[in-house]
Amino acid sequence: MQEEAMEDLVADVFARACTSRPVLENVAGKWGILALAALSGDTYRFNALRRRVDGISEKMLAQTLQALERDGLVRRDVRATIPPRVEYSLTEVGKRIAAKLLELIELVEDAMPAVREAQSAYDGGR
Amino acid sequence: MQEEAMEDLVADVFARACTSRPVLENVAGKWGILALAALSGDTYRFNALRRRVDGISEKMLAQTLQALERDGLVRRDVRATIPPRVEYSLTEVGKRIAAKLLELIELVEDAMPAVREAQSAYDGGR
Repeated sequence: MQEEAMEDLVADVFARACTSRPVLENVAGKWGILALAALSGDTYRFNALRRRVDGISEKMLAQTLQALERDGLVRRDVRATIPPRVEYSLTEVGKRIAAKLLELIELVEDAMPAVREAQSAYDGGR
Repeated sequence: MQEEAMEDLVADVFARACTSRPVLENVAGKWGILALAALSGDTYRFNALRRRVDGISEKMLAQTLQALERDGLVRRDVRATIPPRVEYSLTEVGKRIAAKLLELIELVEDAMPAVREAQSAYDGGR
């Protein structure tokens, strides 16, 4: 990424009214990030996804999936079986963003020893 | 990234009690992501950073910076000038994570035409 292009970009998302901000929040928010990361590995039915994303409430998962579906990142397919089967998967755009989120998660995981050390120093020095 | 390594990783952050989860939330949360992205370009004093991250309250910026400082991603330097000058910058770990966040922001910006189209279709079809 060119330095100049980066400046333009950063200027955009920093603006309060920028339309990309709420999308970034859906994607990078506490539950959005985990739902997208889970769906990058597999297609899920609602309850299976809820078990995968440990700690999420039914209501919060429904809201998260709805926001991501509206943004065109998650696809909701209703299979005409008896009873009907609802499956969630990623769109092409969703896959690209989920792959980047996995890189971010990996980076944070790798940084955890340094982070824990910093936290101890910070808490000890107060 | 190997498929297997990815599985391990995902399994970790998905666990409710995983220590990396709150760090991921600090980093990828609404304000953390913008503060880190801003600091990846420059060192900032508090008020200048607040102007840069349009819409953030004083209290929320203070909390965001404190959490990121505790995680060892942001450094707070007090310069012994009169009056003292407090400057915020990224640590090495913070720089690596901020660079990844900029990649994510760029991806979301690039996806915005597709996202807007999906939003219109979703809202129109309801």
